Amino acid sequence: MINKDNLSQHISQQFNAELEEVRSHLLAMGGLVEKQVNDAVTALIEADSGLAQQVRLIDDQINQMESSIDEECIRILARRQPAASDLRLIISISKSVIDLERIGDEASKIAKRALDLCEDGEAPRGYVEVRHIGEQVRKMVQEALDAFARFDADLALSVAQYDKQVDREYKSALRELVTYMMEDPRSIGRVLSVIWVLRSLERIGDHARNIAELVIYLVRGTDVRHMGLKRMEQEVKGDEAQ
Amino acid sequence: MINKDNLSQHISQQFNAELEEVRSHLLAMGGLVEKQVNDAVTALIEADSGLAQQVRLIDDQINQMESSIDEECIRILARRQPAASDLRLIISISKSVIDLERIGDEASKIAKRALDLCEDGEAPRGYVEVRHIGEQVRKMVQEALDAFARFDADLALSVAQYDKQVDREYKSALRELVTYMMEDPRSIGRVLSVIWVLRSLERIGDHARNIAELVIYLVRGTDVRHMGLKRMEQEVKGDEAQ
Repeated sequence: MINKDNLSQHISQQFNAELEEVRSHLLAMGGLVEKQVNDAVTALIEADSGLAQQVRLIDDQINQMESSIDEECIRILARRQPAASDLRLIISISKSVIDLERIGDEASKIAKRALDLCEDGEAPRGYVEVRHIGEQVRKMVQEALDAFARFDADLALSVAQYDKQVDREYKSALRELVTYMMEDPRSIGRVLSVIWVLRSLERIGDHARNIAELVIYLVRGTDVRHMGLKRMEQEVKGDEAQ
Repeated sequence: MINKDNLSQHISQQFNAELEEVRSHLLAMGGLVEKQVNDAVTALIEADSGLAQQVRLIDDQINQMESSIDEECIRILARRQPAASDLRLIISISKSVIDLERIGDEASKIAKRALDLCEDGEAPRGYVEVRHIGEQVRKMVQEALDAFARFDADLALSVAQYDKQVDREYKSALRELVTYMMEDPRSIGRVLSVIWVLRSLERIGDHARNIAELVIYLVRGTDVRHMGLKRMEQEVKGDEAQ
């Protein structure tokens, strides 16, 4: 079984510059994606159409990063034929970029809603929830990437666990907004836009959780995707007790 | 450049039974997922709670299939160290299962909505659109898998192109339902459930498109994901003219 230290050592001793490079590219892409989430939510709440447009533009850059990291992974698979933890690293990276790209997509969708809502002027209901859940999922993305950077399965586990809370708050915000629509049917169009934003944020949380699960796979060698939080915790914590 | 014939030949000559097997597992999973989409929509429209429950149960089986195909791919990468089109096949399979699993998730979400709506009895607005778009995206899934089975880049291209039309019809259905909610605010809760179903169907179309793009990558060797339909068409058709 691999732990943080010997995985890091293994990398520094045996992985070549190419492998270190693709990992740093993933983290750079992650940093940009995290900023996109933050900027999209800020653009919405502060009705900043300039910032929203910038988020839309940068999305293209993120797509390019996905393609280029993907190419790097395929090149490494073809030329270096990695095995064991090297192979797991490449697999985790090539799957994580898919989630990062989709987080970027969701940020871009939020920015599009921000542009629509900017025109309306008045701040609709649900912005408090958007700000709150937006901050939570941004932090999930950040911590999932930190966990990746440090091969930290415990931090990854806490990200996966946190997703439950985001889902709960998302559902509660949704119920409130539905009630509000019923009370003021003229607001339906605008409130629905806010609901789509919340939905995007909830999905960003899901993608952050996916990345966290890939970190656990990378560090522990176990596919924890469909096992539920309890068994996932045993998998991560149980190992340390050995 | 690889065409259908020599790719098939190549496979029959050089790929081992393991490789043929993982491909057939992908197609079997795809067949089950396609059935799930169909059953979820039928359960909703015919208020068949038994069928909806069955869809929910089978989702677990789909998750298991994802994990097991994933393991097969990793084993092949580690032991056989495939290159060129063999490597592209494994990469396409390991990415397609992610999309298939998510299609399964969306079908399961639709089945959950079906269970909620069954209790209400009355068929709400939007069912015509659900049936219509549901049939369209089921066909997209089917054809994306056919394209995979036959290494058919042209069919894959037509799936990607078709996604545009689904998006258009989804948006038009959404506008209609928003108008309806405004006219009858008491219906908001139920109509919103139908909107979530339409959203799930639209996402199923996106995932089918992703699979189609992976087929083009597999057959043509080009990553067409972020290039837009025009350039994608050139990539697929241009090659044939050579």
